[in-house]
Amino acid sequence: MSADFERIASRTIYDGRIITVREDRFRYDDGEEADREFVGHPGAVGVVAHDDEHVYLVRQPREAVGIGDLLELPAGKLDEEGEAPLGTAKRELVEEIGKAAETWEHLHSFFTSVGFCDEEVHLYLATGLTDVEPPDTEEDERIEIVAWPLSDLDAAIAGCRDSKTLVGLLELRHRL
Amino acid sequence: MSADFERIASRTIYDGRIITVREDRFRYDDGEEADREFVGHPGAVGVVAHDDEHVYLVRQPREAVGIGDLLELPAGKLDEEGEAPLGTAKRELVEEIGKAAETWEHLHSFFTSVGFCDEEVHLYLATGLTDVEPPDTEEDERIEIVAWPLSDLDAAIAGCRDSKTLVGLLELRHRL
Repeated sequence: MSADFERIASRTIYDGRIITVREDRFRYDDGEEADREFVGHPGAVGVVAHDDEHVYLVRQPREAVGIGDLLELPAGKLDEEGEAPLGTAKRELVEEIGKAAETWEHLHSFFTSVGFCDEEVHLYLATGLTDVEPPDTEEDERIEIVAWPLSDLDAAIAGCRDSKTLVGLLELRHRL
Repeated sequence: MSADFERIASRTIYDGRIITVREDRFRYDDGEEADREFVGHPGAVGVVAHDDEHVYLVRQPREAVGIGDLLELPAGKLDEEGEAPLGTAKRELVEEIGKAAETWEHLHSFFTSVGFCDEEVHLYLATGLTDVEPPDTEEDERIEIVAWPLSDLDAAIAGCRDSKTLVGLLELRHRL
């Protein structure tokens, strides 16, 4: 039984705008070898932003999963060169729901799908919210802001279909 | 603002053993069009298996994220033709940790990364555990079983780097 391995070969199959796809060959320290399919992704952030009454969620079309009205945390990809995850989180909170936060706390950083993808999501708790004017960006056009009552958090958790949002709302329930 | 869209073109880039990769073009009902990169995945299950003292986790090498000792729920891909998710969950629990369960409860079904991938994970709670002889399968060779004390669940949650495991352990903490 061993957790040690080394990559002995790598072939890039696709280099897209967001993802890359590779086939890699690994050798384990027991001498066995195996091929693996990998998706490279820049990573993302998600924000659990709440005040005394609401947690602020968004709805947007998600073509990949064929769901038009998926409820999610405000979130975004780590796609700005040199921007740290907390900076991306602050920017996305403004862009997606038009709010700034006084207090930021890191909640969890986790891989969405450890078997084949290196996407890591960094989750933050944002409180002390104030309204700010969001910049005019294209990506907001299809985003609907949902102020979800904290008194009904169990229903949001029960209906949640998105991993980062589920982690964030479960953690929020524990803290309330 | 709209959640309606249709796929108007699709190009397969890669058809691997586990994943497929496509570039699709979408039209929204406001007339705008956009290209999206997609990863197709068969889906997976994860099992929160516990008795009065322990939750049973596994460690195995995860080449995609470069981590040799990631702590995870027993889990597996929906890769057997015609097998329903609960059937896969029961099979994986035997294969990975050598246990059967008397009671099974569906906890959550969620998408790991809604922006670009259709992988859906079905999580179950398994209790009333008994030891059974696991079949001799290749995949177990590098899996280490970890009986994690329920009294130390907060530490497992704090150190967790895997989305399905984090969802499962957060839900377990709520129920204990």
